[in-house]
Order: sequence, then structure tokens, then C-alpha cells
Amino acid sequence: MSPDRAAASPPSALAAAAATLAAKPLCLNTFRENVVLLARNNPLVRPERLAGLRKVEVVAGGVRLLASPMICDDASLVDAHEIGLPQPAFRRLGVQAGDPVHIAPARPARTLDAVRAKIAGEILSGDDYAAIARDLAGHLWSDMEVAAFLVACAAFMTPEEALALTRGMIAAGATLDWKRPMVVDKHCIGGVPGNRTSLIVTPIVAAHGLVMPKTSSRAITSPAGTADTMEVFARVDLDEAEMRGVVERCGACIAWGGRVNLSPADDVLISVERPLSIDTPEQMVASILSKKAAAGSTHLILDIPVGPTAKVRDRRAALRLKKLFEFVAGGIGLSVEVVLTEALEPIGRGVGPVLEAHDVSAVLENRADAPADLREKAIRLAGRVLEFDPALHGGAGERRARDLLESGAAHAKMMQICEAQGPPPTTAGCGSLVHEVCAGAGGHVASIDCLRIASVARLAGAPTDPGAGLELLRKTGEAVRAGEPLYRIYASEPADFGFAVEAAAEDNGVQVSS
Amino acid sequence: MSPDRAAASPPSALAAAAATLAAKPLCLNTFRENVVLLARNNPLVRPERLAGLRKVEVVAGGVRLLASPMICDDASLVDAHEIGLPQPAFRRLGVQAGDPVHIAPARPARTLDAVRAKIAGEILSGDDYAAIARDLAGHLWSDMEVAAFLVACAAFMTPEEALALTRGMIAAGATLDWKRPMVVDKHCIGGVPGNRTSLIVTPIVAAHGLVMPKTSSRAITSPAGTADTMEVFARVDLDEAEMRGVVERCGACIAWGGRVNLSPADDVLISVERPLSIDTPEQMVASILSKKAAAGSTHLILDIPVGPTAKVRDRRAALRLKKLFEFVAGGIGLSVEVVLTEALEPIGRGVGPVLEAHDVSAVLENRADAPADLREKAIRLAGRVLEFDPALHGGAGERRARDLLESGAAHAKMMQICEAQGPPPTTAGCGSLVHEVCAGAGGHVASIDCLRIASVARLAGAPTDPGAGLELLRKTGEAVRAGEPLYRIYASEPADFGFAVEAAAEDNGVQVSS
Repeated sequence: MSPDRAAASPPSALAAAAATLAAKPLCLNTFRENVVLLARNNPLVRPERLAGLRKVEVVAGGVRLLASPMICDDASLVDAHEIGLPQPAFRRLGVQAGDPVHIAPARPARTLDAVRAKIAGEILSGDDYAAIARDLAGHLWSDMEVAAFLVACAAFMTPEEALALTRGMIAAGATLDWKRPMVVDKHCIGGVPGNRTSLIVTPIVAAHGLVMPKTSSRAITSPAGTADTMEVFARVDLDEAEMRGVVERCGACIAWGGRVNLSPADDVLISVERPLSIDTPEQMVASILSKKAAAGSTHLILDIPVGPTAKVRDRRAALRLKKLFEFVAGGIGLSVEVVLTEALEPIGRGVGPVLEAHDVSAVLENRADAPADLREKAIRLAGRVLEFDPALHGGAGERRARDLLESGAAHAKMMQICEAQGPPPTTAGCGSLVHEVCAGAGGHVASIDCLRIASVARLAGAPTDPGAGLELLRKTGEAVRAGEPLYRIYASEPADFGFAVEAAAEDNGVQVSS
Repeated sequence: MSPDRAAASPPSALAAAAATLAAKPLCLNTFRENVVLLARNNPLVRPERLAGLRKVEVVAGGVRLLASPMICDDASLVDAHEIGLPQPAFRRLGVQAGDPVHIAPARPARTLDAVRAKIAGEILSGDDYAAIARDLAGHLWSDMEVAAFLVACAAFMTPEEALALTRGMIAAGATLDWKRPMVVDKHCIGGVPGNRTSLIVTPIVAAHGLVMPKTSSRAITSPAGTADTMEVFARVDLDEAEMRGVVERCGACIAWGGRVNLSPADDVLISVERPLSIDTPEQMVASILSKKAAAGSTHLILDIPVGPTAKVRDRRAALRLKKLFEFVAGGIGLSVEVVLTEALEPIGRGVGPVLEAHDVSAVLENRADAPADLREKAIRLAGRVLEFDPALHGGAGERRARDLLESGAAHAKMMQICEAQGPPPTTAGCGSLVHEVCAGAGGHVASIDCLRIASVARLAGAPTDPGAGLELLRKTGEAVRAGEPLYRIYASEPADFGFAVEAAAEDNGVQVSS
């Protein structure tokens, strides 16, 4: 079933058949996909023959891309001797208008044979995963090919394969070297809305004096990622020099990892995992640990929330995931300590970037209305990170973390980090469309469904709309009367607002027991 | 992991938020994918917010599509109040320039929750598969979503699920009713290059007097499908009225099924299976039997070639597949007889549409150089189809088939069918680039690898280039001296030619034993 298996890549034949066209930038943006426009009467590649099945290989100035062709019948847009280049193909090629661009029908990436083998249930080798990570990072696979790989891996993947994929992903991108014996980090696998402890842990740890250059991702399947929420306070798309400058000054940063090309293969996998809502243990471990190792971390506290509506439902699954993290971390030389935390409801009051940022500010400023659950969890995790410090007395981490928070040292450190990173690109407030979701009957809140709350917040527009999301007005154990509000929905777009309000009307996710 | 699971489709909210733009056809072709162009400053959907993650729902004149948006910064191409419609989105919507088009951010298809459940290892219901087939037929899924579904099904799928998928696929398209008690057909699961028996069996059966309206597909992973090869002789993209006219006159047709909307969900699945080279038993059974049932067949002979390099490698796998065909066929009320045939090498001499058409002509014309293996296999299968005729003496089918071939009746019937279908769109000859692949050492041909031969022929450009492919000059058991040619490669495009020649140099697929 794998007809192309043994065929080698023949650069000689390709070069002989390559055709040269003139680059023509177009004012179009195809998001992350490489698309090129070719005239139907292009004499060199006869685009109709490609029939939507084959990509074209596009080479200019040493950069090689695979792109999906569109046929153009409008000579004023693209003539027979031009290649129309929308973004991001134009940017990725780095050419000027009129520059020569070589083009040829693409042969399928050889790594796709490994994908077919994985679909057939085979175990892939370290070399396979190294090549796969390189091809992913080079944007050589189509979305459907990435999806096929992810789903095939979801069916089964050995711990050794997860390690091989992690190693391949680290090697396929840049790595940061901080020239220090200890670089700490803290990461949560996600799944619990409002769980923005990193924005509190990082300034506490930096205030203590450990180095914590935190690179974080945007949300995959949740209403907000650490980078999304940090962007409410400060610029997060720092390049490597900027990140080094901030860490030099502050001992920490909280940046989006996308600009520094750490594990770029992971970014490609995430771009398909996100719309498909795929999030398997092996992909999770490879994604998180490849990013951490590439970012130069040496010591990591990893938070796995466990609860009936969290990503990990019970202790047995949590222990299996813990072992997988420990196995892969050991294989790449990263010290990891896994902390299992209880997750019976969202953390804090806000869900969505802006609303979560409000909670973070309240904790850092020691305000009376600060959500206690967010504060206590952040202190516990910061304490665990501080215990990595050989100078600290064993068991003293949590006390030290609380002191640094309550004294205002952590808040001052956060202000310093934000100032060093610069102001955010836009000033975002809460969405202007507001709806209160009310209790049908009175009683006490028995539980709040993390999945349902995340779903409503995402339908409202989070995280792409930073001001969208929910504000929880009642948490577990609190009393509520019939008709009193349980939470508020915030949105900016009428369509998003409608989706979220209807979803909450169908099932609001809050169980009230009388 | 399925945050959107419980969210219902809210037409009211969608209608409230829908925005109206003016249709603007664009001279662009995006192949099978629905793409629309929106100005960056479009006030209604703010396309940047979609960030490549979300599709837009496009509605005009009762037709609803999901499309991928591209952002346009060139007001002369698309202004803020227009929606640019390339093909096929323009054609599928059926609008005129300037017509109002409603647009809104799309909510994910609800069937994608079922895909996520399948990825997680669940068994889906009949209702799930019915909805999946409808959404596939309506082009509501992206390629990555189709790929995820296919690979998840490849991991495991029960026979009951295969039956449910088949039923769903039949119901999601048109069905033909020939108003006759018996409509016969013959189908091969493929995998053996050159195996074009349908073009010989159909005229034999029709010459006998049974009704055989053959609808066939283009190649999925092979160098030629029946429709590809028939298109060398005659037009194959008949609509339903044309097909009925041909069958009325000739008792048979050999048409491409794509124009008559039979199991359109299958066409969508195939469009992703083809580039991924996925071909699992369950998808194969659902694909073949949904097409046959929708085409109105009542009695089917199904050929499963078995051999070390065929799709089915051994008798055990063949029997499992046979049972699956019988189970699903029984569930949809189709009489099927499965024939297991031996496949140790390609059938005939030619591989690729034009080269296979040469073999078919030689057999139908009873020429001395006709490949005996193709002739004998066609007679055997035609005999099995004829045995469906209650009037024929049991066991007399093969003799009757041979008589109809040798008398010239089958050839005359084929001429009549071709004339009724009309001339092919282009007159295709063999590719002008020719290379002979020669034996390294002398001896006898011990075996010919079907996969390798298919791979070289596809690299040469088959089937999108009908004249590309191979001509086998030595078959199993024949003698060859060192330096003598084993086969010829034909191609039209230099790049394709180079790929095929290099692949053959690396491994030509022919084993010669001294």
C-alpha cells in the first residue's frame, strides 16, 4: 500500500526539469498555508495536470517550500511567466518582485512512507522521527498529512517513540543556552480554565533569585494559554535577543515561544491539533518537553490537574502520564518533578485572556477580592520550584514563596518584567456583549464542569478575542438562589455571543444541589 | 477533550449574526477546496480574527458551503463589501456577480465530535455515520478532518460500522433505478497493474443480453482506473440521462460515476485517500458497495487478487475481506459473489491508461499478440457474471463468454458502447519520453513486483498523464539476456520522467533468476 516507499529523492532530475518564473507578490494572505498562483497557460508546469493532488516545489535563493497551486485565468493578476506569491509563501521565500523562482512538480515527502507505516501499526525508528520533525519544521507536509500522522500516533505510540519524536523535535529547531547550571521552569498540562498560575509563579521565583526564562504557548484547545493572558499585560512575541535582554535584567521573562523557533515542528503539529481538538498523552509529552528542552530549561515542575472534567480523569491515568513525562525527560536529560493537583472546577473567577489577567493582578496585588484558590495553588507550585535551589532549606519553599508574594516582591518583579517586555500590541478590555447565566433553582454549587465552561468561553470567542470569556460569580460550595447569576458571558462578535449564550442555555455546566 | 460536544447548532443566532456581501467571481481555481477572498477591512466578519483556524459559512440561494477564507489587501480584487469567489466555490453556490451572499464565522460541524470519539476508540452509531456521510457529501469537512476520520477508522472499525458507513454513503447521494429485476456488475478491488478486465467483461456480458451499466472510478492509488482507461476510447463523464440513453441502446455503459452523484461522500473520502495512499478493508468495502448499490446493481462479481505484492497478501486476509464484503452486501440487499484470483505479477503488458487500452483492444480484436493472461482472466470473470442468468445452464458461463469474445460479438458491442458514449475529450498517445529498463544479468523472470511497477508508472505521470506508464517486455517465466530490455517507461513531463527512471534504476521490480 506504499508505492513510493523505495523511491529516493533525485535532485538531478528535479534540477533538470525545474522551470524559472518571475516572482510576483500578491496582496493576499493564506494564513499558515503556502499557496502560489500559476497561470493556466503556464508553459512549464501545466498546472491543470496537478489537479489538486500534487503540490509544487518552489525554490528561490536557497529556500525550498512546498506549496498548493491555484490556477489563475486573469493575466493581469499572474501571467504565464510569473508565479503569484501570497503571504506567507512570499515572506518565507524572502524574494523581491521579479526575482527568479524555480518551480517543479513536487514529489511526495519521503517521510510520508513512515506515516503510512504508522497508520499500518508499525513502530517507527529514531531516524524516522528525526526526519519527520525536520519535514514538519520545513512545512513540507500538508494539513491532511499532519492530521493523518497525529491520528495514527493517537492509535498507539510506544514511550520510546515519544522520546524519539521529542528528540527529533528539539533537533529540528533552535535551542537556547543560558550558560547557567540551573534554569528552572514550571508548566501545567492544561485543561482547567482560569489556571493562570505561571503568571504568579514566575515573578515569585525570579524575586527569589532563580533564573526562569518562561516561554509559553498560546491556547491549543482551551480558552486561554499563558502567552494569551500575558499579552494582556505586555508584549510577548520577543525574539531571542530581546528575551535574553529581559532575562538579563529581570532574571525571568514570560514570552511566547513562537518567535525564537523553539521546536517549530511542535508549532506545526499544534496548528492541526487545535482545530481537530486532538490532545494525546504522547503528543502532549513530546510537545511540552521539546519546547522546555529547546528553551534551555534544566529543572521543571510539571502540574497535572486530575478531576472528573479535567484532561486527566483519574489517578491511574495521571500516574501513567507522570511515568511517560519522567521517562522522556530522563531520556533528554531534563530534571522533572511531576505534581498531581486536584481539579474539581475552574481556578479563579475569570476564563479568557482579559478576565484571567484580572485574577492574576488581584493575587499579585494582594487584594482582598483575589481568588484564594488561584493564590494558594500558585504558592504551592512556586514553593516546589524554589526547592530546586540547593541553598534553600528542604521544605522551606512554600513559606518563602508566600513571603515573596505577600511582601509585594513578586508584584514588583512582575511590573519589572512587563516593563522590560514592553507594552502589549493592543489594549484589550472585556467584550461589550454581556449575558448573565442564572441558576434555575436555588441551593449550593456542587460542581462546575471544566469542559463545559471551556466550551462556552471558546464559543464566546476566547482566546482569539482576548476580551471574550466568562466571569464565574459562584464557585463550588457557594450558595445561590433561583434566578441569581452563576456567571457572565462576555463577547465582541454577535455570532460568537449567540453561540455561547445558546450553548449555556442548553447546559450551563454548573450543578446546583438543593 | 471534546469541548464542543454538547453544543447544538443554533440557526437563530447564526441568522442574526449573518452578514451580506456582494458576490464577485474571480478567475481563480482552487481545485476541490472551497476558498473565498475577504478584504482585510471587511466590517462584518473581521477575517483576521479567523486566523486560519476557522472556516466561514457561506450561504446564497439556499446553498450552504463552508469555505477557507483568504485575506485580501487589494481593493481592486475584493473590496470591503464583496466576497471574492474562485472556483469551485462560485460554481457550487450557483450565484451571479453581485448577488447577495450571506456569511458568518462557521461553527465546527457537529459530526467532528463523532470523529474525535472515533479517534478515542469508540464505536459510532448508524446515526453518526449517516450524519458523517451527509456532511462529507456537503463538503463541510476540511481535508485535515477527512484525514483524521480515515486514519481513526483505519485503527479499528467493526463490520457493523462498515455497514452503517455504507448505508450512510448510499443515502447521502443519488441512486439509479433501472426498473429491472437483474442489473449485473463486476468489480476488482485493484492493486494489480494492467488488470483492465472490466473493459472486456462488460461488452461480453452485454453481448449476451444481461444489463450491465458499469460506473467506475478513476484510479485511487494505482496507475489507472477503469474510467481512466475507458476515457482513452470514449467519453466517460456522462450524466444520468446520457447514461440511461447508452444503456437503453447497448444494454451497457462504461462511465465514470462522478457526474451522477452516486455516493458523493465516497468521492470526498477518495480525494483524501489518494494523496495519503490509504486503502483499508472497511473503507474499501464501503466505497465499492456504496457505489454499486447507488448505481442500481443487484448482482455483483467481486474480484480479489491475492499475491505477495497485491493489495491482499495471503488467503487468510483474503477470506477476512471476503466475509466483510459478504456481510455488508447482505446488509444492503446486494447479491455478491467473491472470486479470489492469483496475482503474482501485473496482468497484460501495458500499465497506464493508454498502454492498458492497447492490451484491451488486442484482446477484443482477437489479435495474435493479445496478452493471454488478460484474456483468460476476463473470460473467467465474464463467465461468472453470465452464470447469474437463470436461463444459462449451470457451469456454461465461461464457454459462453469465450464464444462471445472469439466470435467478435464482444468487440462489436464495445464499438457500439464507445460510439454511444461519444469520442474522448482528447486523443492521447504514449508519452514521447521513452526509456528502456534492462536486465543486469541473464536468466528467467522469476517475479514482477506489482507495487514497484505501479510506483514507477505513477512516478512517470500515470494516470493524470494518460500516455504515461510502462510497457512490460518480459513476463514471469520468460527468458532474458543481460542488457536486454525488461520494460519501457513512457512519460511526457521531464520531471516525471526523471523520477520514474531514477526509481527504476534503484529497484526495477523485476526479479531475474539465473
